[in-house]
Amino acid sequence: MAKRLGHTLILENTPSVLSFGAVGSKKESEGPLAGYFDQLCPDSTMGEQTWEKAECRLQKDAINIALNKAGLSPGELQYIFAGDLLNQCTSSTYGLRDLGVPFVGLYGACSTMAESLALASLFVEGGFGERTAAITSSHFCSAERQFRFPLEYGGQRTPTSQWTVTGSGAAIVGQKSVPPYVRGVTIGTIKDMGITDANNMGAAMAPAAAETLKQFFRDTNMAPDRFQLIATGDLGKVGSALLLELMEREGWKLEGRHADCGLLIYDAEKQQVEAGGSGCGCSAAVLCSYILPAIRRGELKDVLFMATGALMSTTAVQQGESIPGIAHLVWLSNTER
Amino acid sequence: MAKRLGHTLILENTPSVLSFGAVGSKKESEGPLAGYFDQLCPDSTMGEQTWEKAECRLQKDAINIALNKAGLSPGELQYIFAGDLLNQCTSSTYGLRDLGVPFVGLYGACSTMAESLALASLFVEGGFGERTAAITSSHFCSAERQFRFPLEYGGQRTPTSQWTVTGSGAAIVGQKSVPPYVRGVTIGTIKDMGITDANNMGAAMAPAAAETLKQFFRDTNMAPDRFQLIATGDLGKVGSALLLELMEREGWKLEGRHADCGLLIYDAEKQQVEAGGSGCGCSAAVLCSYILPAIRRGELKDVLFMATGALMSTTAVQQGESIPGIAHLVWLSNTER
Repeated sequence: MAKRLGHTLILENTPSVLSFGAVGSKKESEGPLAGYFDQLCPDSTMGEQTWEKAECRLQKDAINIALNKAGLSPGELQYIFAGDLLNQCTSSTYGLRDLGVPFVGLYGACSTMAESLALASLFVEGGFGERTAAITSSHFCSAERQFRFPLEYGGQRTPTSQWTVTGSGAAIVGQKSVPPYVRGVTIGTIKDMGITDANNMGAAMAPAAAETLKQFFRDTNMAPDRFQLIATGDLGKVGSALLLELMEREGWKLEGRHADCGLLIYDAEKQQVEAGGSGCGCSAAVLCSYILPAIRRGELKDVLFMATGALMSTTAVQQGESIPGIAHLVWLSNTER
Repeated sequence: MAKRLGHTLILENTPSVLSFGAVGSKKESEGPLAGYFDQLCPDSTMGEQTWEKAECRLQKDAINIALNKAGLSPGELQYIFAGDLLNQCTSSTYGLRDLGVPFVGLYGACSTMAESLALASLFVEGGFGERTAAITSSHFCSAERQFRFPLEYGGQRTPTSQWTVTGSGAAIVGQKSVPPYVRGVTIGTIKDMGITDANNMGAAMAPAAAETLKQFFRDTNMAPDRFQLIATGDLGKVGSALLLELMEREGWKLEGRHADCGLLIYDAEKQQVEAGGSGCGCSAAVLCSYILPAIRRGELKDVLFMATGALMSTTAVQQGESIPGIAHLVWLSNTER
């Protein structure tokens, strides 16, 4: 049975990430991680009629790649945990509706990959399923038109804005002695510091990231130097700097260990993505292309994967509301104990 | 440890629903269940500036009522599972952001109360938390303007349309020997029969309801006559008739045992709500006002609570997509074994 330490659960049955699939599109194929992806489709319509349907296709491809690599059929999954940024999470529900797998729909904004991986792991830990899957996605074009402006409008981007990743990542979790092992989970609390700038998600999310990370260290009595990589989801340049500052204020030094998926996936200067990448698909794709395989190969031993979400809607922002953030953390390791 | 039977989990530690709170507004105060609610605010703005903020208030009130009844503070909850119909689930995130409780955001459309109660119960079953909460809400005015037309437009309603409940229900789950006990959970699969009429949610959801119910009966070798009440979420008149027909075709008779929360909460004829009530808040409020207390008092012994969701968005429907449905089931009982 999982050990409860404050808000953190230490998993005793150490579920494994059995398999993973990561897909992206043109912009991702021009970034530093291109070589790690399973599939990079240069046409971001993915052959579909709408951006939303293209995003559904990303999820479908990512889960199928993960299943194929593990030699599994969808029927061998007991649960799938999925969500995305679209209103009513339609890229997950439409993308995965044909699988016939019991479906747990999630919404955690860009924190969803950590949320889904945490739940998928806990369901295996608790014996609720033998094999489960976690998946999320995002698409630059569907996100732009829903949250900001239609692409045709050609709106100017601010220096603090981030570029939504067109991609998806899927991870299959099960009981089998193969790294990466899921050793711990910290489900975050909502943190709202009063940020109202919808073009500065990094600032809205950084306090939640700091909160969850400090919670994990306090709960477990561990320190940053235990980890080769502390990967945040999509804080970008602005949010990452804030996170380091917020942690440093309380004596936690992350330098040299912290990396942000939004800054790993793109070369921010060369690719003109302002403060970096973002979106559910950002952390999901980086996790499933770069991080999980590196843990499996033993190049990374202990990693904290912490996806961060800005829990706002355009309606709330138009009504003058501030933007609450949340961050969930999953401790991944090359060793079982 | 929970026993796995097909897609159904039979809970061995039988978590209890410790406490519950149900709130509504004017329309709900005129319906047959009015006397069972904890709070009925005649002003559907709830004293807030916008419909969305009013819906946040509903969630806040429901969880506080449930906590107060149990003599608990928010800090005594380890997890909260919440979701709603608004884009990016903002009534949950904004409504509950001040609680400081680890937050698991869900999206299951109108199935969310069964999804959240299932997860809250499984987290207690698995020892991940001592006490957890499940909550959802909906608001007629925020739903109308998001999914259909602004109220000011005065759009005509079709006979198959349903009336979104303005209400919320919160349930607190824990390890304590008091009924209702959560005995089983069936997480549903997505079912899409090609319905494209966004004003006929009942028809879109009925096949998913039939699928989950048959799955539960097959998995457990139980039959409808074991249950005094099989409560669907918000199939309304159209969906309820379809469910009975779909079940009867395979030899399962539900007559006399089935009731739909959307038809319990309103007097459809007198209150002019066409095919009945709907929304996340519909099944949540009926569960927490009427069903859970009746199980606690022993007036109902075994109940299947199955909330149903139509997993569509206006964008998907405008793109000519059909409407997938999902239904999750929770078996509630007056006895532990």
